[in-house]
This record gives sequence, C-alpha cells and structure tokens, in this order.
Amino acid sequence: MCAIVGIYGNDNAARLASIALFAMQHRGQEATGISSSNNGKIHTIKNRGLVSEVFDDDALRVLKGNMAIGHNRYSTAGGDSILDAQPVFAKYKLGEMSIVHNGNLINKDEVREELTNNGAIFQTGMDTENLIHLIAKSSKDRLRDRIKEALNKTIGAYCFIVQSRSKQFVIRDRYGIRPLSLGKIKSGGYIIASETCAFDLVDAEFIRDVRPGEMLVFAEGHDEPESIQLFEPEFRPCAFEYVYFARPDSEIDGKNVYKTRENMGRTLAKNDLNRDFKVDMVVPVPDSGVPAALGYAEESKIPFKYGIIRNHYVGRTFIEPTQEMRNLKVRMKLSPMNSLIKGKSLLVIDDSIVRGTTSKRIVKMLKDAGAKEVHFRVASPEIKFPCYYGIDTPNQEELISHKMTKDEICEYIQADSLEYLSIEDLKNSIGADRNYALESFDGDYFVTK
Amino acid sequence: MCAIVGIYGNDNAARLASIALFAMQHRGQEATGISSSNNGKIHTIKNRGLVSEVFDDDALRVLKGNMAIGHNRYSTAGGDSILDAQPVFAKYKLGEMSIVHNGNLINKDEVREELTNNGAIFQTGMDTENLIHLIAKSSKDRLRDRIKEALNKTIGAYCFIVQSRSKQFVIRDRYGIRPLSLGKIKSGGYIIASETCAFDLVDAEFIRDVRPGEMLVFAEGHDEPESIQLFEPEFRPCAFEYVYFARPDSEIDGKNVYKTRENMGRTLAKNDLNRDFKVDMVVPVPDSGVPAALGYAEESKIPFKYGIIRNHYVGRTFIEPTQEMRNLKVRMKLSPMNSLIKGKSLLVIDDSIVRGTTSKRIVKMLKDAGAKEVHFRVASPEIKFPCYYGIDTPNQEELISHKMTKDEICEYIQADSLEYLSIEDLKNSIGADRNYALESFDGDYFVTK
Amino acid sequence: MCAIVGIYGNDNAARLASIALFAMQHRGQEATGISSSNNGKIHTIKNRGLVSEVFDDDALRVLKGNMAIGHNRYSTAGGDSILDAQPVFAKYKLGEMSIVHNGNLINKDEVREELTNNGAIFQTGMDTENLIHLIAKSSKDRLRDRIKEALNKTIGAYCFIVQSRSKQFVIRDRYGIRPLSLGKIKSGGYIIASETCAFDLVDAEFIRDVRPGEMLVFAEGHDEPESIQLFEPEFRPCAFEYVYFARPDSEIDGKNVYKTRENMGRTLAKNDLNRDFKVDMVVPVPDSGVPAALGYAEESKIPFKYGIIRNHYVGRTFIEPTQEMRNLKVRMKLSPMNSLIKGKSLLVIDDSIVRGTTSKRIVKMLKDAGAKEVHFRVASPEIKFPCYYGIDTPNQEELISHKMTKDEICEYIQADSLEYLSIEDLKNSIGADRNYALESFDGDYFVTK
Amino acid sequence: MCAIVGIYGNDNAARLASIALFAMQHRGQEATGISSSNNGKIHTIKNRGLVSEVFDDDALRVLKGNMAIGHNRYSTAGGDSILDAQPVFAKYKLGEMSIVHNGNLINKDEVREELTNNGAIFQTGMDTENLIHLIAKSSKDRLRDRIKEALNKTIGAYCFIVQSRSKQFVIRDRYGIRPLSLGKIKSGGYIIASETCAFDLVDAEFIRDVRPGEMLVFAEGHDEPESIQLFEPEFRPCAFEYVYFARPDSEIDGKNVYKTRENMGRTLAKNDLNRDFKVDMVVPVPDSGVPAALGYAEESKIPFKYGIIRNHYVGRTFIEPTQEMRNLKVRMKLSPMNSLIKGKSLLVIDDSIVRGTTSKRIVKMLKDAGAKEVHFRVASPEIKFPCYYGIDTPNQEELISHKMTKDEICEYIQADSLEYLSIEDLKNSIGADRNYALESFDGDYFVTK
Repeated sequence: MCAIVGIYGNDNAARLASIALFAMQHRGQEATGISSSNNGKIHTIKNRGLVSEVFDDDALRVLKGNMAIGHNRYSTAGGDSILDAQPVFAKYKLGEMSIVHNGNLINKDEVREELTNNGAIFQTGMDTENLIHLIAKSSKDRLRDRIKEALNKTIGAYCFIVQSRSKQFVIRDRYGIRPLSLGKIKSGGYIIASETCAFDLVDAEFIRDVRPGEMLVFAEGHDEPESIQLFEPEFRPCAFEYVYFARPDSEIDGKNVYKTRENMGRTLAKNDLNRDFKVDMVVPVPDSGVPAALGYAEESKIPFKYGIIRNHYVGRTFIEPTQEMRNLKVRMKLSPMNSLIKGKSLLVIDDSIVRGTTSKRIVKMLKDAGAKEVHFRVASPEIKFPCYYGIDTPNQEELISHKMTKDEICEYIQADSLEYLSIEDLKNSIGADRNYALESFDGDYFVTK
Repeated sequence: MCAIVGIYGNDNAARLASIALFAMQHRGQEATGISSSNNGKIHTIKNRGLVSEVFDDDALRVLKGNMAIGHNRYSTAGGDSILDAQPVFAKYKLGEMSIVHNGNLINKDEVREELTNNGAIFQTGMDTENLIHLIAKSSKDRLRDRIKEALNKTIGAYCFIVQSRSKQFVIRDRYGIRPLSLGKIKSGGYIIASETCAFDLVDAEFIRDVRPGEMLVFAEGHDEPESIQLFEPEFRPCAFEYVYFARPDSEIDGKNVYKTRENMGRTLAKNDLNRDFKVDMVVPVPDSGVPAALGYAEESKIPFKYGIIRNHYVGRTFIEPTQEMRNLKVRMKLSPMNSLIKGKSLLVIDDSIVRGTTSKRIVKMLKDAGAKEVHFRVASPEIKFPCYYGIDTPNQEELISHKMTKDEICEYIQADSLEYLSIEDLKNSIGADRNYALESFDGDYFVTK
Repeated sequence: MCAIVGIYGNDNAARLASIALFAMQHRGQEATGISSSNNGKIHTIKNRGLVSEVFDDDALRVLKGNMAIGHNRYSTAGGDSILDAQPVFAKYKLGEMSIVHNGNLINKDEVREELTNNGAIFQTGMDTENLIHLIAKSSKDRLRDRIKEALNKTIGAYCFIVQSRSKQFVIRDRYGIRPLSLGKIKSGGYIIASETCAFDLVDAEFIRDVRPGEMLVFAEGHDEPESIQLFEPEFRPCAFEYVYFARPDSEIDGKNVYKTRENMGRTLAKNDLNRDFKVDMVVPVPDSGVPAALGYAEESKIPFKYGIIRNHYVGRTFIEPTQEMRNLKVRMKLSPMNSLIKGKSLLVIDDSIVRGTTSKRIVKMLKDAGAKEVHFRVASPEIKFPCYYGIDTPNQEELISHKMTKDEICEYIQADSLEYLSIEDLKNSIGADRNYALESFDGDYFVTK
Repeated sequence: MCAIVGIYGNDNAARLASIALFAMQHRGQEATGISSSNNGKIHTIKNRGLVSEVFDDDALRVLKGNMAIGHNRYSTAGGDSILDAQPVFAKYKLGEMSIVHNGNLINKDEVREELTNNGAIFQTGMDTENLIHLIAKSSKDRLRDRIKEALNKTIGAYCFIVQSRSKQFVIRDRYGIRPLSLGKIKSGGYIIASETCAFDLVDAEFIRDVRPGEMLVFAEGHDEPESIQLFEPEFRPCAFEYVYFARPDSEIDGKNVYKTRENMGRTLAKNDLNRDFKVDMVVPVPDSGVPAALGYAEESKIPFKYGIIRNHYVGRTFIEPTQEMRNLKVRMKLSPMNSLIKGKSLLVIDDSIVRGTTSKRIVKMLKDAGAKEVHFRVASPEIKFPCYYGIDTPNQEELISHKMTKDEICEYIQADSLEYLSIEDLKNSIGADRNYALESFDGDYFVTK
C-alpha cells in the first residue's frame, strides 16, 4: 500500500502532485506529504490527515518549483509519529534530497544494524530512512551512482522517487512487485504515479509502466527521461493489487483492474456450476466485492442485487490501525437491505477473507435481516501467509486461513457454503501470460535476503 | 431534505440520536445538532460539520437525559450562520422547548409578517422559528393544545418534533409529504426518524410510519405513544425521496426505495424496446443511478458495467452550496473507466437532470475517454418546477427542463439520445396505489396558502 | 464588565471595531462579536475566544459596511452557549437590528415574565434579548421612538448601542453607571467605546463622555451625532471601574484611572502614618495593585519592590468561570520573588478582597518564601454586597466581608495587619465632586424597580 | 534563548516538565516538546505553539514514565518546520536517546561538513542534530563516554540534557554561558532547568547551579546525581540573561536577576547626577524596563510612573519572527498614558536598543501624546556585535549601534538625550566578582573554533 507520485517539469508541480495524491487516497489515509524543488531549495510539507485536509492554498504557495514528489501513507504498525510521514528529507554531502517510497524492504533490520554499528542514527521507524542513509554513505560522486550503490544493498519490493535540487530519480524493483507508471502531462512535463487513475485528474496521458529494475532520470536539458536498466528484470507483479488494493479504473502493467476482478467473479461462477445449491441473488460486499459479483452474476445469470449498503461517511476497514476501531466501523459502515434479502438465499461475494471477523459479522447481519441462506464466495485464494512485500497484513497467527481449513472457516463465519478461488484460478483471471507475486497465498517468498 | 430524529425513554438518548443522525448523514451535511432533556433542563449542542465531527464523547457527556431530538441540515440559501443550525431552543411561558423540523413552510413569510407586526423578533432565517413563536403565542394552557393551534396557522410540508422538559410531540403534515417513521429500540424506548435506515444502527425495530396529519405524544407513564389525529389525511408522499434523496435501504411509507429505483430502470428499458439503437453496456452515474441501471440491465439483458468510478473522498454534488465548488468537485469525484468504455456504445443512467451542467460534463468525459456513443437515460421525469416542499432545488430559471425541450437538452449535453421517465411511469414505478407529490415534474402545487 | 464599541461612518468600520475590542480585551475574554451594516444588510460574526482569535482577515471581509458595533463578553453565570455571545441580531417589523449591551437590567425577570406571558420566546439567557423584544413590540413607527418606549420599561445599569440598517443609537442610563465615551476618528467617522483606551489604537480623538440619560443618534446626512436627552440625569458612575476594572490609561468621565488608583494608595499610606509597624518594602499584587502601591510608596517613602511576579501566559483570575480553574491559575500566575522578600517585612497592596481565598494564598506564598511579616492593604473598602449593576461579583454568602469582620479576615488570610480604604477615602481618591455607585461597599442599591 | 528542563525520578515526570516549561515560556514561544522514558521506551510529543496549547491531559497520558526532558523553542532563522522542534529523538547502536539543547554551537558547520563527508544525513536545521550524530558515531561502549567524546568535538555555548531509556546526562559548557540549575522536588526526584523560576511551580528546592564543564548523571540506584567534571571551567556567564532575557525572579549563578536590573538603573541614575536636565518622572518601557526604572527612581528620587501601558494579549516583540509582524505588534502592545505624560518631561528606561525601530516608535508615541521631553536611558551598553552564543540577535548590519554613534542614534530616535550603561557599569551592576560573556557589547568572542 501507500501511494507515490512525482511531477517533473511543470510550474504547478506541487498542485498536480496533490491532485494525483487525492486520486490515490484509497492507498493510504493516515498521512500525506509533498516536497517541491525550487531554485535549488527543497520545501516539504507533510502531516497526518487526508490530502484535502493537508494541502490547501497556503500549503501549495509554500511548495514552489517545477518538480515535486508526494506520498500517501496508510496506517503503521504503531508509528504514531508525525515524523513517520513521507517524503523523508535530508541534507547530505552533495546537498539536499527528498525521498518517497512505496513498498517494503525485507533486509531493513540488517541494514539498520550495520548502519547504526557504524554510527548512523535513525529518527523514524520507516525503512525509507535506510535508503537515504545508504545514499549518503556512498563514496560515489554522482547521485545516480550513489543510488545504484544503495540499491545494491537494498532487498525488497519497492518503488522509490529520489528528488534532488534539480533532478528526479525513479526506481522500480527488479520484480516490479509494486506498480508504477509514467505519463505525459498535457500542460507540460511528466508524471510518475503508483496508479494510472491519477493521470486523468492531472490531464496526463499514459505512456508506459516503469520497467522492473529500471531507473528513470529526469533532468534539465533532456526532453525525455533517461532510462537506465539497473537490474536484470524478473517480473512478478503483486496479485493483491488486482484482488483488492488498486482502484478499478487503474491499468496495472497493461491489465485493467476492474476486468480482472470481473474475471475472478466469472471463474467463481464457473466453479459453482456443478455445485448443488440455489440462490436468489448475487450480493457484493461493497465496494471492493462489486466487480467480482458483477462477473459472477453475468456468468451465472443470477440477478445482481445491492443487498448491502455502504455508508461512505466512514473510512475503509482494511486500513484502520486498531482492532477496536475496526469493530465499531464495520457496524457503522455496512447496512443490510432488509426488504431485498428477507427470506432469500444469497450468494455473497467479498474480495478476500483476512481474519474472518468481518465476514462473520456480515453473515450474521444478513441472517439477522432475514436471509434464508448465505453462500459466501471469495474472489481470491486463502490468505495463509503474511505479505512482506508492502501490503499491510496482520501476523500469521491472525490469518484465519492459517489456523482453519475452508470447512472450519465456513462454520466459523456461519455461512451455508464457502468457496475461494484457487491460486491457478487467480492467475488465469489476471492473465496467464506472466508470473505473479502470490506469497500471501502460496508462501513463496521469492525475494530473499 | 434534512433529517430529524427523536429518541424517547432511553438513558443513552443523545448517543442513539447521534448514531441515527450519522446513518442519515446523506440528508444534510452542513450542520447538525441535538437537544436532550434531563431533570427538567434542556441541553443543546449544535454546530457546522458532520455528525462524526460535532458529536464526540465530550459533547455526549453534556447531553444527559433519557430523551433527545436531533437534526442534520443541508446547505442553505445563504444562511451561513451557526444560528441557522437546529434544534431551535426557546424559553417561553410554560418553560423550555426545543424543536427540529424537516420540510418547508410555504406561508412562512405571511406568518412572519403577522408575527413581526405584533412585535415578534426573529433571530434566524429558519421557518422553524415560526412554529416556536406560534406555540409561544398561543393562549392555551397545555403544550399539546398550543402546538395544535400553531399548526392550524402553518401551511407546508413538514415533520416536527417538539421536545419539552418531559415530553416529545411528533407531527407529520396531513399530506405525509416528508417521510417519518416510528421504531422501538431493543434497549428501551422509541425512535422517530426521517428514514428507517437509522433504525438498524440503534438496534430498533420498525413499527409503522407516522400517519399523515398525526401527532404522537411521548410522555412519562405511558408505555406507548399516544396518537392524536390532528388533520384529515390527504396522503401525497414526495416522489423525489424515491428518485433521489432517500437511502436505498430505507422503507418509505411501506415501499423499499431500492426496489422503486430498480422499477424506474426497468421501465426505462421497456420504453427503449422499440427504439432503434444498440449499446454495449449499461453504465450508472454512481451512486444514485446504480439501482435504476441494474433494473435497466436486468430488463434489457444488456451487461451492467461500472464505467464511471466515484471517488468517495469528496462530498455529494447535489447539496454543495455554490456553483463554483460544484464544478471543481464534479471533476474530482467521477472518473471514467477508460479501458471498459473505449470504442463502446454506452447507455448511461442518472437519477435526474437538474441544471444539465453535470450531465453535460459526464457525457464529455465519457466521449473524451473514447466512448463511441452515449445514450442518456434519466430515471425520473423532466424537472420543470422548483420544489417548495422541502427539496432544495434551484430557481426555475436554472432548471434546464424549464428552458429547453428534451431534444434541445439532448443536444446541449451532447448525448446521442436522451429519454426520461414519464410522470405516469414514475408513479407506476413507485406504486400506483396512491397519489404522490410531483410538483417538480407537473407543477401541481397542491399545498396552497 | 463587558466592553462595547460602535464605529459609524468609516469604510473600515469592522476592522476598527475589532481593534477597539482588542484594546478592551481586559473587560471580557469569553466571547466576542461584531455586526456591520452594509447596503441595508446586517452581517454578524460572533464566537467564543479572544478578539485576535475570532477576527481574522476572512471574518473582516464578511463584515462589510461603513458602520459596525462590537462586544467583548466576560464569563457568564453558566451560560456556556455560543448563543450567549453578542451582538444580538433580530429581524422585526421595521427590518433588521443588532444590539450590544454592557450592564445589567435589574427588572429583567419581570420583563421576561410579562413578555413570555404575552407569547414572546427567549433563545438566550442574556438580558439584552429583553430590550430587543421591547423595541420590536413597541407600536411606534420610528426606531428611535421604539427604543425610548423600550427604555421606559428598562431598569438597570446599561449602555446600549442599537444598530439598524442605516443608523446607530447609543444610550447610557440616567445614572451613567457604566462608562461610555465618544471619539472622532481621524480617518473619518465616529467611535463610541466603553473605555477611552480604545481610541488611541484606532487613531481617534476623545470628544466627550456620553451623558447620563443621553441618546446619541448617528445617521446619514448628519455631520455630527444628534443628541437627545431621554432621561433626567442623576449621575452616579461606578466606583469599581476606578478600583479594579478599567485599564489604567483610560479616562472615565473626566478622571484618569491610574491617578485615582495612585490616590487610593496615597490615602492608605496616610492612614498608616500613625500605626506602629515597620516594613521594608511596598509590594503590589500585580497588575491591578501596582498604581496604588506606587502611590503608597511615594507617600510613605518606603521602597517599592516587585516582590511578586506575574506570568502573563495565563488569563485574569477575576473573570474565570469556575472556582476550580481559579485555584489552579492563581498558582500558575503569581510567583514570589524569593531573594527580595526573604527575611523582609512587606506591605502588600491589592485592589480588593472578594472571597479572600486569593489573598490567603498570596500571604501564604510570601511567608513560605521567607517573608518575616506581611501587612496587607486593600485599595478599596470592604465588599459586603453583591453588585447588580454590571460587575460580576459572587453571591453575598461568598463575600468574605459579609461573613467576617476586618480582624477575622486578617486572621483568616494570616496577615500581620490588614487595612482597607474607608468609603469616604475611596470617594475622595476618585474625586469628591460627585456621587458614585458604591453598592458593593455600602449596599445602597439606588437603582430600584 | 530557549528553555530546557529535565525531571528525573518522579512518576509525574512529564507533567512536572510541562509545568516547568510553562514557567519558562518567556524563553521561547514558537514550539515546545517533551520526551519521557518509560520501561525502556522513549515517547515524544512536540509541536508548534505554547506549552498550554501543546500539553493537555491526552498528551500527558502518552508521556508515561518517571523521567522526562523538555524544551521551549524561540523563533528560528527561517526554520518553519515542525521538525525543528525539540527534543530530538534517535535510535542508534545502543538503543534510543532523546536530546534537548539550549545554546549555540559555533563549529556547527564544520562538524556538519565532516559528518556529511562521512555519509551522515541531517533531517533538520538544528545544531542539536550534530551532537546526536557525534554520540552515535563514537566507538565507546558506554553512553557517558560517547557523550564525552562528542563534546570534545563540540565548541560553543550549550546546555544539553541527553536522555536514554534509563538515564539522564546533563551538561553545561565549560564557560557556563547559558544558565542551568539543579533542584530537588519535594514529591520525589530531581529537576534540572534553565531558570530557577521553574522550581517554585513544581515545588522544588534549589540545590545549586550546574557547574561550568560539569556533567551530571542521573541513574537508578543512585540517590544523588553523579558529578563528573568534564572540562576545566572558565566561568563567563552571559550578561544578556541579566539584562533582558531571564525572568526577574530567577537566580542565575547566585545572582537575583531583578536586583541586578535595579542596580543597572541605579547606575544610570548616578551617571546622570551631573548632567544638566530636569525630568518630571521615570517611565519604564514595560515589562523588561521596569526593575531598572525602579532602581533609577529610587536613586534619583524622581517619581516612578507607569507612563506606558502594556497590553498583555499580544506576545513579546523581541522574539517574533518577521519584521512586519513586529511593527504591527508594537503598535498594539504599548499605549501611552496620555493624562500622566502630557506636558511632562520623561526619563524613559528600556533594557536595550537593538535595531532602534522600537525605541523610535516609543519616543514618537510619547511625544504625540504630549510629552515635553523624552530622555532615553538604556540599561545596557551599546549592542555592536551579534551574539553567537545562543541569543537570537539580528545581523550586524541591522544593529543600530554598529551603524551609528550614540549621538546619531539619539537624533534618529528623536530623543532629547540618550545614555547607555558602560560595559564596566554593566559588570559592576551584575557583580564585579567574575567575568561575563559580553560579546554583543565588546566583540570579545572568547569561544573560538
């Protein structure tokens, strides 16, 4: 999770960055920040809160310059400090730099230990601070070479944008785990963003995805970004972006998110063809279950109904910090459509089951509202392993699929039947033409120290 | 618009009122307030902002007592004052009272003039202040008789709850134009609310709608509210609640809002049966166009697709105060699903067209995204007349259907075809068993001075 | 207490009003508000907080027009409502008006009862609402005649400014109890203010005090305000303004406040001439005891020393709402100058003793800091009676001089000696040329119903 | 400027720290912060604003533990970042530490350069970050040895408190330039504070000043702090603390600030004995000129009068960030006492003249108010050099005494005469028993790289 953006070569750089961050608000709502570069000076404003709360006209007046980078942060493991917002700024030997990061560095602790053993200090809990230290410690003369050296010591899933006083360096890891795209802004300059849904709002045209292992360099005097292939690519984009995290109107590495979700639903329907049960309607858990439910309904010819209403005056369940808050918010967020579901058998579709508590509450809510049967379908495989590549999953002990079989989960959530996608189904739904990062489902932690 | 709630006979009255107001936040987001009664003293807290912003634990600690009334306010014609929030509180001859109101009094100015001619002062622009004056001026000894007398001078569409130090009086006008329902709270006492969607969250059971012309009196020593029929009922509930305003999971006067909207969509589809055009998909303008689009898709067998994505980090278009803010927000709120609609012919469904500017922008956005054709369908008749019965419509000159024919509008919004529901269609979609308030469509202002 | 201001005939009326209120912040810190009149429309902004908090550039942009009235409110008896801020605005038969008031109406309850018996409602606890009702109820055609009629039913100590859409009416009660002065603004127009200390900041020249019983009318087409003597004057200005409340650089009814306080100190010194005790220094309780202490020191030739330091990051004791907050704040506000007072005998001077708790704490603090002796002098007579004329004194039971003799108080506060001014001393210190309102000291409630 | 505090061995450590910071608010009003240590975990809260704004009960609940350090920050040279507040926290090889600092490190840039050359990064503009880097880079095993090593590379005027998870290390530079005192808290444990005025409020007893060059170590199992003399002392405390900055009730290195200011005034009076002029009164520029004016009046027998009133609802001139704000605030802060000074000759005393603009405005204000003559006296020598030892003075070009002779300044500010203290006078006024840091007056920058 998290979103990053870079704007290069546009006099409204910070304003466009803030609009792009607004379009990617779903990727992180805890904190947001922007650094602009103007006349060799980097200005940074960052704070807790939504993009629309942090960036008003006053803030944008401070953030002068024709390049800017920005970040949306989702809730952190216990990092309640304002210091844990990004961009991370530092003065170092070559001047000033500011960095934004989306991803997770799996050798973070080892790097930190080595760095602190050599006298480094860390002022935040963010792994982004690692990279900035490694860059500063490099003995190379040019920033681009320092970044390369730093990345050689960096293992994980990452997208970085490093902004100096006059350049931007964009890097995507060799696996291309986290998404990152390049666009051309009609009013001038370029945009780099985690999701293409940011391009429309700033009136930019999609050019291409940043390649796995690629570094793009934006610098004065160059009409186009310079491309340097830093690492041999081993493309394995994150499947979870398609399942849950990305906005449906985004195109990630050439695949439209909405369509892949429809496919997941269609596959669930096909799998149900020979199963012996009858339902009156397909009901999505809104909002993320909607495309799969539409796919299921289309495939199965069972009517699609909005049997659960979502109250949009509350935030997203998945990314709230504490368990206690999550409970309250589920109750205030989803309401059953009593008159539709009373006495009816429902096929309910959600994008995933993590801890099982939300699903259990949804089934109970529907049955309390009079549903005769609730058949639960999940548009992803069982989540048995925590993600270490940038999605904020709980500890393995909290993952219900780690602790229970499918049948046990079905009983636990009190559903009348429960089916998941198989891992093969998921791959085919997104597109069988490539490998995916599927570690939450199959435990294949292919990025290793 | 606006929402009102009353809680009687529960020790957590103010807390339940705030939760009910939260569930009805869609009816008004400008201001909110609650008055509780405790030991013969009325406490009031009201302020601008959302329910979740105004009512924290500190506020609820102040609002002690086992009865409370509350209000959500939508934006006002220019009333930027905090004083224009409700409840309206007053000390008068018999003690203290507090009032909430949903609706619009059409003889407001005449009553004000008569009252001011007799020396009354008005501290706000709200017509609610009329009623409180009329009650205070009555020569009757009992509050219920004063309310009756006051209502005899009050013409309009209204739902009132008057709270004294120990009682609550609930009144719905003789036409039942604005909705109002009665529920029983499982943890004790009763709830009155503009919409039944508030009942679930406070764990209340729907009992019945308040009847047109009925006054309910909640008082100590009575297990059930006393019912007094104040006026001969002439039932004509507002059709606009079904078309646009109410939450789809609410039941208004026995009819589920979602189902009526599905019906509207089905009717649009039937009307299109013999029309000569072909589309690839049915696309709703989210969120309010979704049920009708589902109905259309089901009836026509054309696939339903989410071709437009809504960003929920912005508020509702319809109820924002100024034209300028509305423009910006439309652009930030709706995004086209490029890869779905490119090269496709779309059947787009919205709930209504008011000024036409939003529809024009939507069509443009879809065509810019590559849509081949955009056939626009509206799940309501042409709005030719302003509503004086409690819906916040603009002046007649701003209503596009007042100024243009259907064909002219079609050209103006650059659609490939445009169809509305007929008034007859609308009535049948909601239910042909009764009359409706349809003044926005047919100009029949049946409530007259 | 409270401060009022009126600006007439200056295009920056609201800005000047806010600056004048800032200069009179000492008269009330709980809430503040301004109403301006512009093209026949009255705009009002009022809120809790200090002048510098409530009135920023945004607020002043709203408050257009060439006339404005404003108010600072001190804490109220339990009125925690934003509605209890002034100005009070009302629409009535003749249009719009807004009123500010400094003082206290002693027949408030009777007037309210009569008004509510006739059907009036009261939305606040402020007696200012009485006047606005009486004006609205008058049958006269002109506002000035309505005001006169209303004032005939109004008994108390008061200064009012009534602003209509095009005029201002300024009234001071027949006794001139509360101060009110007229000035001419160099950049154009007039200012009316509770204290002349407001004149300097807006660059205005003092013209004269408003006369007891006078009404000034500011209206277009008149170079100078029209003066109407409404009531036979019986001049008795409030002595407490000189003792404690007014700012020392104000001139009230021709007498400089600082000088009268010096006189009070000199008189205390003269009275001590034949008393048998010896002190090392005169120490004021800052800030209000300073001028009297300087007078005492000058007269007695005993050195003046700042033995107590005041921390200005806290507000004033006297005007805080609750006893509990007062305790905490005394402790955080005053610090003893240990090295100055250790082993020394002190003559401590405060302006008054109300409940005795602060004085007791001050004596203890000084003795704890090593003072050998603490002789306490009070620059006013014993406060035996509550003030009903606009000073916020506690109930009589809380007044220590109501419950104890001077000797008992001396023992209670643990002072080595205690002396007050006599009532005669006080009169002579301010000026023997007129009568004063002295009801807190002598119980002569000369304004009666 | 700035204030620091350390509380060790008291369960209410953070609360006591916040109260002590409140008492030292005059030393810095831009930002404030506290770090507590609890069970091996350091918690930090810091923000812009006053102590009373930043530390409420919620904040103090977070700041658990029996030790805490805190800081008040005055405005910075252009550091508008929240990151520039203290304490500065870091994780490093040995765990966690947090630091507060009052002073200025003159070899800051060289140390930064060396550190960045070796790969260090700096996230703020504060020299405090230097020390934390030096400590982290040390190869010693114990924190105390690391601190020693770090201090060997640190040149400047400083007081540091370094807090680890279980210890506090307090250091004052070898010259004792900035003040720092040790007290014993009656409810348990110790307090370290920049000024003794903080001791009273937390009910602590002064023990002694921290010695120049001394390190105090607070650790579990030791009843008293361990004292280590790190550097050979060369005691030269800052004279400016006595002249202007410290609170008058503080004792700095054995000398009461108020008394030294009285002495400065007395000396000015003695110097005037043979001068040929006659004044009617001694008038202080409040608040900081008051003690000197009292000393002058006592010595000269000329009456002391409060001819200028200060409005305490605005902050201090000296420490506001921009020139523009300063202008506005001077005008709103000081008012002339017209009736006292009209036609009179005044001897006005201020603590210092920095740029001359305030003095010029004061003289003009007094003459506009009718003063016949204004003789200006300054209770310090001419400020010809910027301070690099921790007082926030402007650039040398802005210092009026750098650009003009005394006579030229006298003409510039339009005074009738102008006299300063000589440097010798200043030394004698504070106490001839030791050397002082007088670099602002004599340019003797004795702390050198």
